[in-house]
Amino acid sequence: MRMVDVVQKKRDSQKLTTEEIYFFVNGYTEGKIPDYQVSALMMAIYFNGMDKEETADLTRAMASSGDMIDLSPIQGFKVDKHSTGGVGDKTSFIVAPLVASVGVPVAKMSGRGLGHTGGTIDKLESISGFQTELSREQFINNVNTHKLSLVGQSGNLAPADKKIYALRDVTATVDSLPLIASSIMSKKIASGADGIVLDVKTGSGAFMKTLEESQALAEAMVTIGNNVGKKTVAVISDMNQPLGFEIGNANEIKEAVEVLQGKNIQDLRELSLVLGSHMAVLAGVFDDTESAFKELEKNLENGKAFEAFKNFVIAQGGDVDQIVNVSKLPEAKYHIDVKADTEGFVSEIDAESIGIAAMYLGAGRASKDDLVNHAVGITLNKKIGDSVSAGETIAIIHSNDREPNKSIMKIRAAYNIENSKTNPNNLINEVIS
Amino acid sequence: MRMVDVVQKKRDSQKLTTEEIYFFVNGYTEGKIPDYQVSALMMAIYFNGMDKEETADLTRAMASSGDMIDLSPIQGFKVDKHSTGGVGDKTSFIVAPLVASVGVPVAKMSGRGLGHTGGTIDKLESISGFQTELSREQFINNVNTHKLSLVGQSGNLAPADKKIYALRDVTATVDSLPLIASSIMSKKIASGADGIVLDVKTGSGAFMKTLEESQALAEAMVTIGNNVGKKTVAVISDMNQPLGFEIGNANEIKEAVEVLQGKNIQDLRELSLVLGSHMAVLAGVFDDTESAFKELEKNLENGKAFEAFKNFVIAQGGDVDQIVNVSKLPEAKYHIDVKADTEGFVSEIDAESIGIAAMYLGAGRASKDDLVNHAVGITLNKKIGDSVSAGETIAIIHSNDREPNKSIMKIRAAYNIENSKTNPNNLINEVIS
Repeated sequence: MRMVDVVQKKRDSQKLTTEEIYFFVNGYTEGKIPDYQVSALMMAIYFNGMDKEETADLTRAMASSGDMIDLSPIQGFKVDKHSTGGVGDKTSFIVAPLVASVGVPVAKMSGRGLGHTGGTIDKLESISGFQTELSREQFINNVNTHKLSLVGQSGNLAPADKKIYALRDVTATVDSLPLIASSIMSKKIASGADGIVLDVKTGSGAFMKTLEESQALAEAMVTIGNNVGKKTVAVISDMNQPLGFEIGNANEIKEAVEVLQGKNIQDLRELSLVLGSHMAVLAGVFDDTESAFKELEKNLENGKAFEAFKNFVIAQGGDVDQIVNVSKLPEAKYHIDVKADTEGFVSEIDAESIGIAAMYLGAGRASKDDLVNHAVGITLNKKIGDSVSAGETIAIIHSNDREPNKSIMKIRAAYNIENSKTNPNNLINEVIS
Repeated sequence: MRMVDVVQKKRDSQKLTTEEIYFFVNGYTEGKIPDYQVSALMMAIYFNGMDKEETADLTRAMASSGDMIDLSPIQGFKVDKHSTGGVGDKTSFIVAPLVASVGVPVAKMSGRGLGHTGGTIDKLESISGFQTELSREQFINNVNTHKLSLVGQSGNLAPADKKIYALRDVTATVDSLPLIASSIMSKKIASGADGIVLDVKTGSGAFMKTLEESQALAEAMVTIGNNVGKKTVAVISDMNQPLGFEIGNANEIKEAVEVLQGKNIQDLRELSLVLGSHMAVLAGVFDDTESAFKELEKNLENGKAFEAFKNFVIAQGGDVDQIVNVSKLPEAKYHIDVKADTEGFVSEIDAESIGIAAMYLGAGRASKDDLVNHAVGITLNKKIGDSVSAGETIAIIHSNDREPNKSIMKIRAAYNIENSKTNPNNLINEVIS
């Protein structure tokens, strides 16, 4: 088999065989096929697409290009949750203990953040002593004991995806639905879960800006899941403004804990319950999402979910005092108010800009080797639909720099204030399964 | 400027600016832009094309990426001829002395052959002592003295084209009209001619198999020529069977000399006169191609064209005795008859297969470093429309191998013999200027 013939076949809009797909994925991973042939193929896929079978084959080939995590020593049906990336998204810290509290085993591998969205691992490391690198035995023991463990991604998880994604990033071939969908799903499949709940974000702060694009991505991923034999559900949720009020690392842990302690932070609490309900149903703990939702809500109110979170923190070496009393989490030196210059109602908060403002403060990474500062971040005082008077504080910056001017400007520009009141979009747009 | 943005722009079907085109051509030639970004761009161009201005810019950028030959010390309007590649095409050896004989200066740079088509330089080297590497001074002196010199291509002629073509070859991006047209024209423009006559072959033995494709390529190249200020004419000529009867190196020189000596080898003689007429008109020696044709025909008949050829051979160190008496040219050890197995009329001679059969004998190169054998080749005894009886010789193989079985099979397969008579296609399909 010659790679040039595989490229030509896709260029001519013909369907690639399973053998051809494994040939290029494995050949590229092993360094036998050069970058320039793979980038030409990616551009041909950009134009001619891939059908369901090709996309499933690509996903499987990338998933099996490195370690395939074996979670079979964990009892029960393992469900993973994945978000396509939003700003202020701390649902994992609520959903994971929530479903663990009803007996769903959660064995989750997460990544670090890059760009305007934060990483789950970075956020957890706000807690003193918290270990995100566990041995395989520890990881599995923790899940069997506490129904929950969360670690950093293994070094060799879907290396083909890593290599292909890096190439796509510099050859203008990222924006291809089958390539995006297979990239996400290959890592989830290599992670060994039996079922997957996808949180597909839609709106200005999301990778997919329109509902149509988000639906197409959700459908593509659910189809892959079904084709590779993993129960998969996608929830399309709004990302036209950040989720909750806190953006950063310690900030976000704090807000998640508040929800686990029973506080009603509406969008964050609702999305967590919806995602958790789907996970619990996939795992077979409940028959339908309505009853799952009610039971999970109870476990938020009666403290069982919070209890699961505390056990999880203790099991991974974290300082549980910082969780019981979140004021003990790292806090930045300065609190700087960002004030409205006009009165009216908040009509838009560009989530991506808020994410970038937080990155400027040091909460996220501009490039891979940057260090994250856990104490800095942003608290939103106003969200879409809220009334504002001129000079009123719309957001508070937690900063170690006395004059974080770039972030102030970015936050101000992110807010749009109008005379008439706009209601926020529906939080949940659609569920695809 | 970032290469990824240039790729994305073309991917999104936007027009590239002159700056963007020079940026990637020069960056790639200098090794600053990697293969994988250029191959992605080539695939985007494959799908989205390039308009006339983009194609002209690409041609100019590739032409100026290396040496630009300065032919200004040569008096008169220099016209170059270029063929898109056929089998048995020895017109250069007739056309060049023919137009030189009416005062058109011919300063021609040619390449060596690869694959099923032979190279002009290889064929000339059949003549003992013939030098194809001259100093610039010698080359220019020869043209000023004899109106004709023909040398091998300089090492650094359009290096961008060389590098991009090699990449296209392994990334399934050869078949793109603007890329093919700009590749050919960039070398011609770097060669310094004032005007260009293109012989665009069409048919089974040509790069472009259909008349429509050949017309499109011819139009694209003429448009480039006009856009870069070089008078350009394209003649679309038939390549549904080899040109003339001889294929090889010494064989082809022999047949060209026979035409120069007045022999009427119909297709070869006619095409040479047509191409020569257009060159002479471009150079301003005649007002129209009809009168040019008549004058050139005279110089074939009165021996002036042959005289010009002999002077050219002598000036480049070749043994003129081999030209005066072509039986002194290298001849292979064995002559093997290829016989028809049925009777009827020749309806097809697949030129590409005949070219490959000659390559098998050693007349051409399968790969770049192969040595060419000047003595071997093929003589066709029958052409399209000729009647054949069973067992009659259709072709003679000139071989140093007593049993050239692969070539025999290839030649037999190239011939199609049917019951009813087929007339050959028109030799000249169209002239585009």
